[in-house]
Amino acid sequence: MKKTKSKYEVFREQIKIILYGTNTILGRMFDLVLLGLILLSVILIMMETVQGINQKYHYQLFICEWVITIFFTIEYILRIISIQKPVKYVFSFYGIIDLLAVLPMYLSIFFPGASILSIIRALRFFRLFKILHIPQISHQSVQLREAIEASKEKILVFIYFVLISTIIIGSIMYLVEGRSSGFTSIPMSIYWTIVTLTTVGYGDISPQTPLGQFIAALVMILGYGIIAVPTGIVTAEFAKSSLRNNAVSTKKTCKNCNSQVHFDSAKYCYECGTELPNN
Amino acid sequence: MKKTKSKYEVFREQIKIILYGTNTILGRMFDLVLLGLILLSVILIMMETVQGINQKYHYQLFICEWVITIFFTIEYILRIISIQKPVKYVFSFYGIIDLLAVLPMYLSIFFPGASILSIIRALRFFRLFKILHIPQISHQSVQLREAIEASKEKILVFIYFVLISTIIIGSIMYLVEGRSSGFTSIPMSIYWTIVTLTTVGYGDISPQTPLGQFIAALVMILGYGIIAVPTGIVTAEFAKSSLRNNAVSTKKTCKNCNSQVHFDSAKYCYECGTELPNN
Amino acid sequence: MKKTKSKYEVFREQIKIILYGTNTILGRMFDLVLLGLILLSVILIMMETVQGINQKYHYQLFICEWVITIFFTIEYILRIISIQKPVKYVFSFYGIIDLLAVLPMYLSIFFPGASILSIIRALRFFRLFKILHIPQISHQSVQLREAIEASKEKILVFIYFVLISTIIIGSIMYLVEGRSSGFTSIPMSIYWTIVTLTTVGYGDISPQTPLGQFIAALVMILGYGIIAVPTGIVTAEFAKSSLRNNAVSTKKTCKNCNSQVHFDSAKYCYECGTELPNN
Amino acid sequence: MKKTKSKYEVFREQIKIILYGTNTILGRMFDLVLLGLILLSVILIMMETVQGINQKYHYQLFICEWVITIFFTIEYILRIISIQKPVKYVFSFYGIIDLLAVLPMYLSIFFPGASILSIIRALRFFRLFKILHIPQISHQSVQLREAIEASKEKILVFIYFVLISTIIIGSIMYLVEGRSSGFTSIPMSIYWTIVTLTTVGYGDISPQTPLGQFIAALVMILGYGIIAVPTGIVTAEFAKSSLRNNAVSTKKTCKNCNSQVHFDSAKYCYECGTELPNN
Repeated sequence: MKKTKSKYEVFREQIKIILYGTNTILGRMFDLVLLGLILLSVILIMMETVQGINQKYHYQLFICEWVITIFFTIEYILRIISIQKPVKYVFSFYGIIDLLAVLPMYLSIFFPGASILSIIRALRFFRLFKILHIPQISHQSVQLREAIEASKEKILVFIYFVLISTIIIGSIMYLVEGRSSGFTSIPMSIYWTIVTLTTVGYGDISPQTPLGQFIAALVMILGYGIIAVPTGIVTAEFAKSSLRNNAVSTKKTCKNCNSQVHFDSAKYCYECGTELPNN
Repeated sequence: MKKTKSKYEVFREQIKIILYGTNTILGRMFDLVLLGLILLSVILIMMETVQGINQKYHYQLFICEWVITIFFTIEYILRIISIQKPVKYVFSFYGIIDLLAVLPMYLSIFFPGASILSIIRALRFFRLFKILHIPQISHQSVQLREAIEASKEKILVFIYFVLISTIIIGSIMYLVEGRSSGFTSIPMSIYWTIVTLTTVGYGDISPQTPLGQFIAALVMILGYGIIAVPTGIVTAEFAKSSLRNNAVSTKKTCKNCNSQVHFDSAKYCYECGTELPNN
Repeated sequence: MKKTKSKYEVFREQIKIILYGTNTILGRMFDLVLLGLILLSVILIMMETVQGINQKYHYQLFICEWVITIFFTIEYILRIISIQKPVKYVFSFYGIIDLLAVLPMYLSIFFPGASILSIIRALRFFRLFKILHIPQISHQSVQLREAIEASKEKILVFIYFVLISTIIIGSIMYLVEGRSSGFTSIPMSIYWTIVTLTTVGYGDISPQTPLGQFIAALVMILGYGIIAVPTGIVTAEFAKSSLRNNAVSTKKTCKNCNSQVHFDSAKYCYECGTELPNN
Repeated sequence: MKKTKSKYEVFREQIKIILYGTNTILGRMFDLVLLGLILLSVILIMMETVQGINQKYHYQLFICEWVITIFFTIEYILRIISIQKPVKYVFSFYGIIDLLAVLPMYLSIFFPGASILSIIRALRFFRLFKILHIPQISHQSVQLREAIEASKEKILVFIYFVLISTIIIGSIMYLVEGRSSGFTSIPMSIYWTIVTLTTVGYGDISPQTPLGQFIAALVMILGYGIIAVPTGIVTAEFAKSSLRNNAVSTKKTCKNCNSQVHFDSAKYCYECGTELPNN
């Protein structure tokens, strides 16, 4: 049975190779075309929101966007048809993005403004980045993700404390500066505190009273000091991962206690004394 | 005597388990309810300062805040009653915060504006963070605190020098720019210097003369260079603490094979597997 | 034939020593004169754009710039004549810059504004930096370049993800804030997102609605967190290169005493003083 | 002769102990009084420039400043009299500052505005910081200075390249944006570039054309990337100095080749094989 495939099955398999494969010439070419179309599509949607351009080229933009949307729709349907587990794909992260990338355009038939939501197509860049897989860059992106993930918890704890501080500082500034300086409410003051602590400093609200400016200066120096903390966390993770390969290696794993960092020349586990595999 | 507890004593002990305990279901549930109420309360106080919302829902906000305050008051009294050393609790950091969390509302009977001070309740988040104790996060927060504490002194010395510099730079800018550009006094110029050095840059005051802009550019480049210092301090501390477990030292000598360089945390010789002396 | 050089050949060689050599007194002096002239020239072009100065000293600036341009032109011609492979020089990075440094002035005869393009002369500083070669500084600049190059790929991957995020965030802000707050189009909103994420914060566009300010605060905290990433990448590279000499490895084994953990740069065994195998 | 000191000599020595000594109670008390007076004096000069305060308390400020100036003058004279090498002191860094701290007030008799220059007294804080010498803090400040000094050269090379870039970027922005957007001249555009690259972002000048905003976004992302460089340099120095004490020590110095970093347990120099002193 396996050997005699129906015409439809052969077609399905070829489609699958083109859509999901990255090793064949056709598959790679398709990925590049897709990358180009997404880029074009994202630029078109942006252009649509620029008043001058939209007034001049409204019709052309409209046509192009529909052509790309129909292409993406066909692609989406073919992806579902050609894959073995269509349900898994439909509800996967990329499956949902692929759907969200075409839906807004159809919605715009009923709700004219919805076409702007197509900008969500930009998220498709993530997948293509993964699919194109240039090995060196994939490696870098894995290292990046690992270091960020390892420091995620510490940074969240840090942000928790920073947020509580912004509530207290914001309330003090609300009481000191008052409505006349633009600190119209505590949420507004907290907004100002975040703008200041992160050193963004729009200047749309800024303290006017001497006391307010004094407190603001303290907040800035505090922000100056604590900006170091997330940097320190992430850097330590990067340094750890890049130094680990230097003196010690992680190639040897102890069968007994599962500890993974040993000297390159280690014969016994430093943790439990078990003999290590001779690499 | 110990075995026959009065009804009151049994009640006190149960209350203590609920208020201070974190291992029983009731104790944990109470902590979560408290966390929710503090969050609600902080949001309500914030809303009260937003003019539009306050005008519409003044009465509802007023009622909710009193209900929460009375709940917190009862909780505070029960905490004093149920604990063995009530005086110690009352004068502890969290005891004072618990009191300050309810006082402003009662003060607002006599001084209408005082209710805003209830925002100090936000500080209660700190304790709950500790009480809820998710072990992993507690560990991260300890590491964070250690690294910050270890670098505190260096950062203070650094800020001391930065502050002296801001006085000098501020005075120069006051002389160069003068009152017409917004540099109305030396304290104002120092405020501008801090705004610039920390890269906040509101733009409420900015140099107008070519010489002033030249000096400002120098200050920015200086600030750019020295922002590295606190970051460097904190990062080195993080790196030290995270590398410590991978650190190699020569403090331990294997009795069997005489090898001298081991991980600081090693328990067994990597060369022959003999147990190492416990430091 | 080799020994009897024509007068022209002797002249060519002397010119070459002056223009390209850095070891003779004449060659070094020429480099310093050139450095001074480039600096003077760059300052003159800048001055030309300052309206007040240009109106007063237009004629003097005009003369000086032409004198310097003619000097640079002669230098360029002599460089081509004196070098063995003139074609290679002409199409080299510095050859092109040397040409671009004189061209705009001649173009300004036909297109009056073109003289400002002479500012490209500033790029000639790069070469002189290399030519003057103070060994210590050359070393530092090599270390700098190495660390930056090693982290280039990771930073590019990081910027790729940041750019996709700015598209999404920019579109959300465009929908939330709308044209009335200055978010006139998606490209404009992306511009705002970059201004905010990088903590520059001009304040020419800033969110006006509560929801917009809330999202902006989230973006700032995000920016605050991710500013750590490029810093972490570069720092880890610097740390690696500077720790490398103090790094401990197990690649070298002492033939005499069998000790296996040495500095990477070690030449002799720290245990028994025996010479170590070279790598 | 040595034993029988004149009354004047005894007086001189006692003065010297009070002014320069830090170990006697009197010497320490004097330092604290001086610290207080400098702080008071700096605050008074600042207050003088605040219009509201100056109008009200002009006379009181005037008296206080003269009293402090006369005290500093007497101190300065006594310092010269009591020290063995007065010429060396007068021309030392702190000697010059001590003189500059009193001069402006006397100059203000002839030039009324000169009294503001007395703010230079703030520099005297540096010395007192050194004199008070709390050992722990002195140590931290030495570590800070060492790390900054070690990274000074790399940072200067980096700033050299950044400055050349600002010239090029500034000129491009001048050509793209033109005078109407506030980019009135190339120096002004360079000022804008520095404001943007350092992420200060006043917003007093900001690009108005789409192309200008696009280039500005590129500059910001560039600035975002390169802010990492000075941080990386300084951090690596800190990490190096703080890690050095971990695995290896600097207590042993090779008599032959002067290399200073060895394992704690090292018996022979890894660099030249010479036997090391047995600590």
